[in-house]
Amino acid sequence: MFEAGADTPRKYLERCLEVISNREAEVKAFVCHDFESAQKAADASSERYRSGRVLSALDGMPFGAKDIFKSAEFPTEVGSEFFRGHRDWQDSAHIYALKRSGAILVGKTTLPELGSGYPPLTRNPYDLSRSPGGSSSGSAALVGAGMLPVATGSQGRGSIIRPASFCGNWALKPTFGALHSGGLIWRSPSYSVMGIHSASLDDCWAVARCIADTVGGDPGHPGLYGADQLGPGSKPSRIALLETAGWKGADETYKVKILKFGEKLSANGVELISRNDSRDIEKLEKALSLFPNYRPVIAAWEVKYPALMARDVGSSFITNELLARFGEGEKITLEDYRTALISLEDLKAKFQATAKSVDGYLTLSAPSLPPLGMGTGDSIFGDPASALGAPAWNLPLLEDRGLPMGLQLLGQQHSDFKLGQYAKWMQTISD
Amino acid sequence: MFEAGADTPRKYLERCLEVISNREAEVKAFVCHDFESAQKAADASSERYRSGRVLSALDGMPFGAKDIFKSAEFPTEVGSEFFRGHRDWQDSAHIYALKRSGAILVGKTTLPELGSGYPPLTRNPYDLSRSPGGSSSGSAALVGAGMLPVATGSQGRGSIIRPASFCGNWALKPTFGALHSGGLIWRSPSYSVMGIHSASLDDCWAVARCIADTVGGDPGHPGLYGADQLGPGSKPSRIALLETAGWKGADETYKVKILKFGEKLSANGVELISRNDSRDIEKLEKALSLFPNYRPVIAAWEVKYPALMARDVGSSFITNELLARFGEGEKITLEDYRTALISLEDLKAKFQATAKSVDGYLTLSAPSLPPLGMGTGDSIFGDPASALGAPAWNLPLLEDRGLPMGLQLLGQQHSDFKLGQYAKWMQTISD
Repeated sequence: MFEAGADTPRKYLERCLEVISNREAEVKAFVCHDFESAQKAADASSERYRSGRVLSALDGMPFGAKDIFKSAEFPTEVGSEFFRGHRDWQDSAHIYALKRSGAILVGKTTLPELGSGYPPLTRNPYDLSRSPGGSSSGSAALVGAGMLPVATGSQGRGSIIRPASFCGNWALKPTFGALHSGGLIWRSPSYSVMGIHSASLDDCWAVARCIADTVGGDPGHPGLYGADQLGPGSKPSRIALLETAGWKGADETYKVKILKFGEKLSANGVELISRNDSRDIEKLEKALSLFPNYRPVIAAWEVKYPALMARDVGSSFITNELLARFGEGEKITLEDYRTALISLEDLKAKFQATAKSVDGYLTLSAPSLPPLGMGTGDSIFGDPASALGAPAWNLPLLEDRGLPMGLQLLGQQHSDFKLGQYAKWMQTISD
Repeated sequence: MFEAGADTPRKYLERCLEVISNREAEVKAFVCHDFESAQKAADASSERYRSGRVLSALDGMPFGAKDIFKSAEFPTEVGSEFFRGHRDWQDSAHIYALKRSGAILVGKTTLPELGSGYPPLTRNPYDLSRSPGGSSSGSAALVGAGMLPVATGSQGRGSIIRPASFCGNWALKPTFGALHSGGLIWRSPSYSVMGIHSASLDDCWAVARCIADTVGGDPGHPGLYGADQLGPGSKPSRIALLETAGWKGADETYKVKILKFGEKLSANGVELISRNDSRDIEKLEKALSLFPNYRPVIAAWEVKYPALMARDVGSSFITNELLARFGEGEKITLEDYRTALISLEDLKAKFQATAKSVDGYLTLSAPSLPPLGMGTGDSIFGDPASALGAPAWNLPLLEDRGLPMGLQLLGQQHSDFKLGQYAKWMQTISD
């Protein structure tokens, strides 16, 4: 529309600002924003469209960034008194890439204290009595409320996929290292990634592609694979329906809904298999069910250094609950951590062993409806893709009791693009 | 001596300060220091020895840290006007670990502009007309001059090993990820590590062990393997003498010296092999000789994001030579980078293929004498261990024209400890 002159980045931004002015007071997705600078940037972009000097397909796209990513124009406070007013000279890698491509950073979005402590005041745009999920709370709510088309997040457990499910967003948690996470100020665990929430599947991919092409993946990684555009979508041949460790605690309605969606896939010619049909999938399920036993060891050891230091320097700025959790690293030895890494290697091998049997894996994005009140919900369905370094998409294709309900489509490392194409096809059959 | 009461941390520190007062004005190893705080910390440590509440074997050990690592008490300026006065709330992981164990951070040490640009004013303590090497210039000179027993550094190419050779220090460039490099403010390339310079081989290992035990390796890595102490040393059975890409440009005298050392190893019962004796070693040498062709692609792509951003934000604070180099990432695509990574994988496979044939690999630490004037010398002999993520020790066992000359002992990943034991044995035969 911008290219055709039927719309301009400034007009588009103004419509976003109108939604923001209608919804932000109740949703509370932003930590900070600068509408005036955004308007100036939108004017400059509009001028580039007029004069044919467009920077990229994302020129003029307004977006928000989770306030765990450094940015030059805004403070980076990580939802914590400890970082109150913290400024940095640099934009995070993905912010740098998007701004260089003409996209407009409108503001920073909320998250719980240091990503995992006290939740933000942000509300679910579909039901203000409920949480938008977390830890990418503000980014999820922002996109879910239609305030901006795109917002970025990060995931160490379920921080991209779960809130996307709760707020009805498309979201990509990429292959580990496929998108440059530079500027992520508080990373735990080691397999954390940056990712994207979007109102549209194509936009989500375009943003990912832009980041990878401009700044690459994390240094040492080959970056995101896949073409510029997802195209019309494609039908997978065979999908594994995974329970993972979260299944036994999941809501019955949620289970029924995903099984029904599985039937729809079958009806449309996709072969669906589960732990009952394949010994390799059964072995994977068993390995996944063990992950919660050693995940806390990995998490506590990997956050030990920054956490204990933060405790030493600024205990009065950190809530007691988080301080207690920060102390857990002290009980863990390097030897304990190595043992956990060996278990994780075993899980990865079991996942790898299923690579040739299926095109992708379908599971829930969250175990139940977004929680009432402040809690951001259970991360358990985010763990598999996080721990495996595997790509996962949230597909906002279902509803439960009037609220969005996501499906999670996972795949082997570097299948981000192929999964996006499957997601697109699944969208067509769910309409 | 501290434990026996024959010496105290305060008395030891005072002797260090005396050397500093004699040598620092001409060597210029420090960016900043705080002797008064160090004296207070040494008093507290002395009191711990008196009262039997010693924190660790390193309690009371004064050390310096390369000014590329964040620290809470000192600015972190990375040798650059761009970071002038930059402060941070956190100590780097290794500084946190060492301080927690009772060691005393005396000051920060010099390096070239952002690790690779304009060299610092630091001089070689053995010949003030010459460079101490780089980029861990100040740490090398500090230890070489006997001002402090230990200083930390980082290596992306040859930044630990080369200056150790020039300044006569023991040094460990550990297996990639084996020591937590958190707080390294400017990392390029991705396989960069933190490492240690020391006047004593045992101290070097004790410091490495302390860091790994307290904060571990880089998150996701199993950390440094090996016992608490190197012990009496051990004799390797078979060592490969490697030329690497640096050999053809190396000084003839240096070549003669290392070959003579090889003869000494043989005379002491170590089997020495080279590219002439083994097809696998020959393949490795060929792969190593190709590394300089694609190394610049890796370096330029991996520094693209921070470099271009630094250029955008602060070009007036960066020298023109470095700005020009910073622009190189713009010419490189993600596809070029992937091609380089594939070549690097091939090199790693060739290295791996030799693992069972030899116990370690011996090569030069630098191609020639420390340069006269300001240049910090050629990094080329540092490239193999850096690119392979392999451990490497500098053994300060030779001299050339009255100046220290190091040997580099490399090994497969996680052989840091075994190599340290071999180094100790080599010290006994070289005495």
